[in-house]
Amino acid sequence: MPVFEETGTEYRDLRILPSQALPLPRLSPRVSTSENDREVVVVGAGPSGLFLTLLLARYGITGSSLLCLDSKPDTLKAGQADGLQPRTLEVLQSLGIASEIIAEGCHMEEVAFWNPAEPTEGTNGNGPVGIKRTNFVPDVNVPARFPFEVTIHQGRIERILQENLDVYASKNTIRRSHHFIDYTVDTANHPDYPVLVNYEHELEDGTRVPGSVRTKYLVGGDGARSKVRKSMGLSLEGETSDHIWGVCDFVADTDFPDIRNRCAVHSESGSVMVIPREQIATGEYLTRLYVQVPGDVDAKADRTTTPGDEKKSSDKKKRAEVTLEYIFGQANAVFAPYKIKIREGTVPDWYAAYQIGQRMSPKFSSRTADGVDRIFIVGDACHTHSPKAGQGMNVSMMDSFNLSWKLAHSILGLTPHASENGADTVLETFEAERVDTARQLIEFDAKFSHMFSGKLNAETGLTHDEFLKVFRDGSGFTSGCGLEYKPSRLIWSPQNSDDMVVATGDPINGALTVGRRFLNVELKRYADNTTRQLHDELPSNGRYRLMVLTGSDLLEPDDQSQKALEACATIADKHPAGSIDLAIIHPLKERFEWTQIPSCVKRLAEMRTYGLAKTGDAYKIYGITKEQGAIVAIRPDGYVGALCRLSALDLVEKYFQGCLITI
Amino acid sequence: MPVFEETGTEYRDLRILPSQALPLPRLSPRVSTSENDREVVVVGAGPSGLFLTLLLARYGITGSSLLCLDSKPDTLKAGQADGLQPRTLEVLQSLGIASEIIAEGCHMEEVAFWNPAEPTEGTNGNGPVGIKRTNFVPDVNVPARFPFEVTIHQGRIERILQENLDVYASKNTIRRSHHFIDYTVDTANHPDYPVLVNYEHELEDGTRVPGSVRTKYLVGGDGARSKVRKSMGLSLEGETSDHIWGVCDFVADTDFPDIRNRCAVHSESGSVMVIPREQIATGEYLTRLYVQVPGDVDAKADRTTTPGDEKKSSDKKKRAEVTLEYIFGQANAVFAPYKIKIREGTVPDWYAAYQIGQRMSPKFSSRTADGVDRIFIVGDACHTHSPKAGQGMNVSMMDSFNLSWKLAHSILGLTPHASENGADTVLETFEAERVDTARQLIEFDAKFSHMFSGKLNAETGLTHDEFLKVFRDGSGFTSGCGLEYKPSRLIWSPQNSDDMVVATGDPINGALTVGRRFLNVELKRYADNTTRQLHDELPSNGRYRLMVLTGSDLLEPDDQSQKALEACATIADKHPAGSIDLAIIHPLKERFEWTQIPSCVKRLAEMRTYGLAKTGDAYKIYGITKEQGAIVAIRPDGYVGALCRLSALDLVEKYFQGCLITI
Repeated sequence: MPVFEETGTEYRDLRILPSQALPLPRLSPRVSTSENDREVVVVGAGPSGLFLTLLLARYGITGSSLLCLDSKPDTLKAGQADGLQPRTLEVLQSLGIASEIIAEGCHMEEVAFWNPAEPTEGTNGNGPVGIKRTNFVPDVNVPARFPFEVTIHQGRIERILQENLDVYASKNTIRRSHHFIDYTVDTANHPDYPVLVNYEHELEDGTRVPGSVRTKYLVGGDGARSKVRKSMGLSLEGETSDHIWGVCDFVADTDFPDIRNRCAVHSESGSVMVIPREQIATGEYLTRLYVQVPGDVDAKADRTTTPGDEKKSSDKKKRAEVTLEYIFGQANAVFAPYKIKIREGTVPDWYAAYQIGQRMSPKFSSRTADGVDRIFIVGDACHTHSPKAGQGMNVSMMDSFNLSWKLAHSILGLTPHASENGADTVLETFEAERVDTARQLIEFDAKFSHMFSGKLNAETGLTHDEFLKVFRDGSGFTSGCGLEYKPSRLIWSPQNSDDMVVATGDPINGALTVGRRFLNVELKRYADNTTRQLHDELPSNGRYRLMVLTGSDLLEPDDQSQKALEACATIADKHPAGSIDLAIIHPLKERFEWTQIPSCVKRLAEMRTYGLAKTGDAYKIYGITKEQGAIVAIRPDGYVGALCRLSALDLVEKYFQGCLITI
Repeated sequence: MPVFEETGTEYRDLRILPSQALPLPRLSPRVSTSENDREVVVVGAGPSGLFLTLLLARYGITGSSLLCLDSKPDTLKAGQADGLQPRTLEVLQSLGIASEIIAEGCHMEEVAFWNPAEPTEGTNGNGPVGIKRTNFVPDVNVPARFPFEVTIHQGRIERILQENLDVYASKNTIRRSHHFIDYTVDTANHPDYPVLVNYEHELEDGTRVPGSVRTKYLVGGDGARSKVRKSMGLSLEGETSDHIWGVCDFVADTDFPDIRNRCAVHSESGSVMVIPREQIATGEYLTRLYVQVPGDVDAKADRTTTPGDEKKSSDKKKRAEVTLEYIFGQANAVFAPYKIKIREGTVPDWYAAYQIGQRMSPKFSSRTADGVDRIFIVGDACHTHSPKAGQGMNVSMMDSFNLSWKLAHSILGLTPHASENGADTVLETFEAERVDTARQLIEFDAKFSHMFSGKLNAETGLTHDEFLKVFRDGSGFTSGCGLEYKPSRLIWSPQNSDDMVVATGDPINGALTVGRRFLNVELKRYADNTTRQLHDELPSNGRYRLMVLTGSDLLEPDDQSQKALEACATIADKHPAGSIDLAIIHPLKERFEWTQIPSCVKRLAEMRTYGLAKTGDAYKIYGITKEQGAIVAIRPDGYVGALCRLSALDLVEKYFQGCLITI
């Protein structure tokens, strides 16, 4: 029996609880710790609002700093968004919360395209009948860590976000049954917490009790009918298209052979989209069907959200005619000769009719009298569109992902001091980057959903090949992996200087490109000889990364690589501890010892120093030569901010001076 | 805006909560639902007892059927076991609870061997000084789904098991501060619940309140000093070796270069083992050191657990001399010229001294007067040994894994009717299989720990190469992946019949072998074209699997493969629904339609029908020809029970008749 002595009892719980990311350092004072003075108030606890709240909490905005108000009494239970794109999966993985989604969600690796059968393939005497499979096409056409889409109940994703929030923040961070009313600003009398948020708390008996709370920043993640957006004086602008669709989540009983694949089915009777869904508690599998309601509605009328529109009420009437019977009647017409019905003994989860529309707000932020961007909107409050390309929840959550670290850095005093007009130049990149993304979303969706709704035949002039081309070309965008942010203070164009590097190869295949996320690569960690995924090694914890791909001269004292490593350590030390992580990749095949490289590497990056793995050559994938190497500045959200030569140390220093406060 | 109708509200929560495995079917009546009449009482909530409780709950033994008594007031917080072997990881993954362990635990892929430096490599004038790295060797030398060991705090594993238990069973399934006293049996007056378990409940003020509960089955997972074992009249038997070791978990500050590797260090001053551990909440990494205390102690004295042994008290005194200072003094002597200390500002978690001993109980079960095996022991209650090979928690949990489904099947009425003497012939295989495993464990550990404690030089006659050979040869056993259960009612030797198949190739590399677990392979699921890991497709939910590897004649009507599929469907239908899952692998490269194969496949195995993936040819790995195929009967724990020709349908039928009740 051992003689046992426990010495570190105070740390015991920390050893067994789920891991927590370390918070960012705080350089700014907390002016007030009153519950009435928040640093951020988020309105809405759907995917965008809840995700923002979680990210802020993880970065260190917790306790009485953070509040989320949601009008619903409880979390969402049915329907709505269900698709997660590869980039969203990468981001969730970078937060350590993807495993249940990937293990339990339905993967979509291929799409089956079905089209009207040729006359020779089956007729009823009056021309072609029925449908035939034209081909299978990969669902994701770009390299990604998870080369598939996942479908899973939105409520389950929200539950996972909520559970992780509980690890970082107190249980009452989210107040439910709280209806946002409006906000007012008073920078003169309340310079620290100038935004007054007015709400009503709905009691169980339906009574509404008015209340208010002051905050530094207000974010509206309150959906397409956002009241925060309305208070900002903004509205969604754009078209409502002429297509009405029915949608239903249910357990299918069918002889249609591809019911477990994502399918785009065009028949003479209309269009259907099949979205396979996850296995449920009974052991059965859900299916989502999108069924087109044939016939056009008037597309000319005004489509902004202004009320009192006759056209809208006629569309509404038409949507009301979309019953469950109608959906399945129409589905069977499209699927013929195959049959589809609800499995006996089961009840569908929900069904709905909706009209496709692409609309967006012209601005996503609002500046107060003191020159500071204090009010923001994210998610459906910024943009609405069809569900066809599975983008909704993804672009919404990525709005929050973009805003969260900029807002946290600003609040925590990590951004450089404000410009003359008072605005935070890091924070103001949120609007520029996400408005641009939303515009691409709206354009792609208009094109994609129009083609999807049209019949593919001589009459409409649409061919299957054209449809396929839009689908394939759009994969960079729809997967989220091809997103490229435009040059800014945070994204340094290579045209800035000859000392910047342009990587060799196609950016979509991994060649390092400013404005794009770095692709995951497999590496071998030097310290323990274990195989690592680089995405897991640089998690989304709000920190910048200074990643040095050393040259093959690494072991030569006083050569370029060793000089670069030492200089990068010095640059990192000029900013607050915990704001920049140093990471090193080397191309050497032979084993070396810590003593052969600068000691700053072991000091700052003992567990972030990597060699090449057996599978995949990181230098080749990233388009960097092993002779020359490169220095990569990576933003906290994983996007490349600058790509410089090993000798361009002044540039690297300048880049970080533009993003982070110097100490 | 959609017209929205939610129809399946009663199922809503089930869509968003964590997934639950479906319970096994129940054919036996619940005689009593009183809390005083349990079907199973487990004593001890350490890894073996807690794991058993969780497994039983997952299989459907829940509610008032199940009770676990633990003497401790709370879960474990410090020290003890920390290593999970590849097979244990596979089993945890098969329950869907491995992801946190794999993501957050420390992976060990290689072992560094260090030995005394040669005289030419460094001297102090009096001969050799210091140590040098002899080589790196892979830590796991056999194919496994996770080709590494993981180290992580035992308390964290227990927390994960406990959280999963909470998904399946009520919160009061585990009663803490309950001390098991003894049990009595009365089959005459209480034929249904003949075992009376006596315990004392310790209140917060230290008062002990006696209590008792009746049960059908009692399992002791109550550790090396098991009182359940004592009540059975059994004791641990075997040797206590002559080596004393110190152990400490702490954050290291060292220039020893391989501190993040598992290391076996032999120096002129003694031996040290380095076990790298997981990252902790501060961002630092733990290290575990095992430090040999030089000098032998008397190994001749009696080593059974009988008390009053003078030798034991002298050993105890020696162990008491192992202080924290002693451990680090000795470590520095071995590591010289490298230095190692506790990182400034940190406190070690714990330290202890222990003496290596290999002991086991001669029996793991006890039969009551009615001829039924009703009392069992698992884990340390059955066997104790050194921690050197990282086996403790693993073999213990695998005891429970082996017992759990046999016990559940017996209780739920799924096993064939009892033999003449009343014993359940399925359940009685537990003792045979696990006693044999424990014996192998004891033998390996004695050899391994003796070599580890000895100096590697001419004096002891031990060479580094000999040590390496024991290490490598032992990998099948230490990884858990090479375990082979002996022929029994559940393991059909190929010598039984010419109609059984002997796969081509080395069993350790995946060739299907009765008695061994089937290796994971990557496959492509037919229904949705997604890439799957076979281990994830056949999770540990208590069901047998009837896996048909069809021949290349699959599409030929009335040929061997189609006949086999239809016959296997009939065999599965002869046993309770939910007791056998049909699964199909086919070798065809061309696409086919459901209508080309027997309809029973879509009916019973729509989501368990697979083709070959791009990486790895399942037939080749499993050593089965594509021309002939094979039928594999797989036990609920993933071990191959029988391997038959496609034509040997009578044999397959007979196999399942021997394991499962026929309906």
